[in-house]
Amino acid sequence: MAVYPVTLSQTGFVHRDQLTYPFNERGLQFGDGIYEVIRIYEGKPYLLQEHMNRLFRSAAAIRLELPFSIQEITNQLTELLERNNMVSDGIIYMQATRGSAPRAHAFPGDVPANAYAYVQDLPRNIDKLSTGVTTMTERDTRWEHCYIKSLNLLPNVLAKQAAQENGHYEAIFEQNGRVTENSSSTIYLVKNHTIYTHPATNRILHGCIRMRVEAFAAEADIPFVQQAFVIDDIPDADEMFLSSTTSEIMPVVAVNGICIADSKPGTITRKLQYAYEQDAGIPHVNM
Amino acid sequence: MAVYPVTLSQTGFVHRDQLTYPFNERGLQFGDGIYEVIRIYEGKPYLLQEHMNRLFRSAAAIRLELPFSIQEITNQLTELLERNNMVSDGIIYMQATRGSAPRAHAFPGDVPANAYAYVQDLPRNIDKLSTGVTTMTERDTRWEHCYIKSLNLLPNVLAKQAAQENGHYEAIFEQNGRVTENSSSTIYLVKNHTIYTHPATNRILHGCIRMRVEAFAAEADIPFVQQAFVIDDIPDADEMFLSSTTSEIMPVVAVNGICIADSKPGTITRKLQYAYEQDAGIPHVNM
Repeated sequence: MAVYPVTLSQTGFVHRDQLTYPFNERGLQFGDGIYEVIRIYEGKPYLLQEHMNRLFRSAAAIRLELPFSIQEITNQLTELLERNNMVSDGIIYMQATRGSAPRAHAFPGDVPANAYAYVQDLPRNIDKLSTGVTTMTERDTRWEHCYIKSLNLLPNVLAKQAAQENGHYEAIFEQNGRVTENSSSTIYLVKNHTIYTHPATNRILHGCIRMRVEAFAAEADIPFVQQAFVIDDIPDADEMFLSSTTSEIMPVVAVNGICIADSKPGTITRKLQYAYEQDAGIPHVNM
Repeated sequence: MAVYPVTLSQTGFVHRDQLTYPFNERGLQFGDGIYEVIRIYEGKPYLLQEHMNRLFRSAAAIRLELPFSIQEITNQLTELLERNNMVSDGIIYMQATRGSAPRAHAFPGDVPANAYAYVQDLPRNIDKLSTGVTTMTERDTRWEHCYIKSLNLLPNVLAKQAAQENGHYEAIFEQNGRVTENSSSTIYLVKNHTIYTHPATNRILHGCIRMRVEAFAAEADIPFVQQAFVIDDIPDADEMFLSSTTSEIMPVVAVNGICIADSKPGTITRKLQYAYEQDAGIPHVNM
């Protein structure tokens, strides 16, 4: 997966090899920052406005003053795609931190925020979108403000690693049996033609794709219930799926080795995948 | 507070201006690392062995393989002090991250850890050690593994900032009224000649100075009870104090605007401060 050479830095567009940070950068010493990942299809961003709105919500939540307006950063990200002649499927990764300053927990005063963004290729995961993925559950030990898309991602890193070591695509977080979300995606359970997922509280990230899933469900007259399900509900699920910017709408066919229904992606999941492709203006994959 | 030029990096000793990190460093994108702060008095480290033991415990807890043994890093930190001709009071800051690699949550495979360390001056805070400091309480919203000295410090940053904006030295974290620890130090309450502090569970950092306080208390026949106190206990406290590598043993004379006893550092606090000075081999300050 190629990373394109031109990156967006605080000082403008530079080659990615020139984009370095000093050792006393607050992102590096405190994880004191926020980020976004934006899907690119054939060189065009999908849900860019929604991601930028969330970026600014996350910034406000940690009281980080961003050195640009939504319009300015939107223009710069568009220019980033152009300067890289991006025409394939990929992502933009961007983050903003509270700057570089002598280490002290409290805010560093007049230091400007540091932001950067880069583009990389990321083809759609057609195989897995077709057959679905397996998952396992992990205890959710994260902090209480998971609605902030912050750089404090150590529990997510450890959960994802555990999942991969066990041959799974994702880890499903649970707190006392109640399912919150995944290590880097939203999780849903379908039962009796109704979609269940954790409400958009401070315990989960308010996913951009999650918002679209809610809209797709409404258009298809499928009840979308924002109510946490529990681990014990999983064996009786009719369908399960997850969503994220990079995973799209991904069927989940097993959890902790327990098959979901007949281990095949369900009808509602397929409907939502199709609605996603229509919404994003991308080709329908025959799954 | 001067930062000395020679820093310890992955590639050996370099000038601190040469110590930069690429944008895809996992410390910068995930806070995927750990750190230590070691007190230096007159150029000599205090409790170095204890800090190095904890560094390796933190590394094990996040499954980070450090690229050195305890003996090797101890030797290198000693050389760092020598190369900087360090003879004053200061600190060593050091951190280790899971390296630089294309961004993905799971571990990056064969990438080596990145570690660095630097020295800076930090005089003892004689004024505050004499008069004591004020504090406020904040809700503890952190993750469940606070015994790991990780780089995921955003909640600590926000709490410390709130404290400073309100004119306080520290924020005391509480969970449903139970006091855990401070944003960057351990908190203690003295009542009826007994010291109370949160037990060394996964909810607090197991402070190196906290361990010494326990030993000082034992030597002075002062009961040291590892039992969380609650916010409602604070107005009736005989004394309060906090401890950390940079704060030493610091009297706390008010919490949320409520004075502790007569707002003067207490007798037991003074005894522990004296024991600390003896233990660290530093001059006794007439407080």
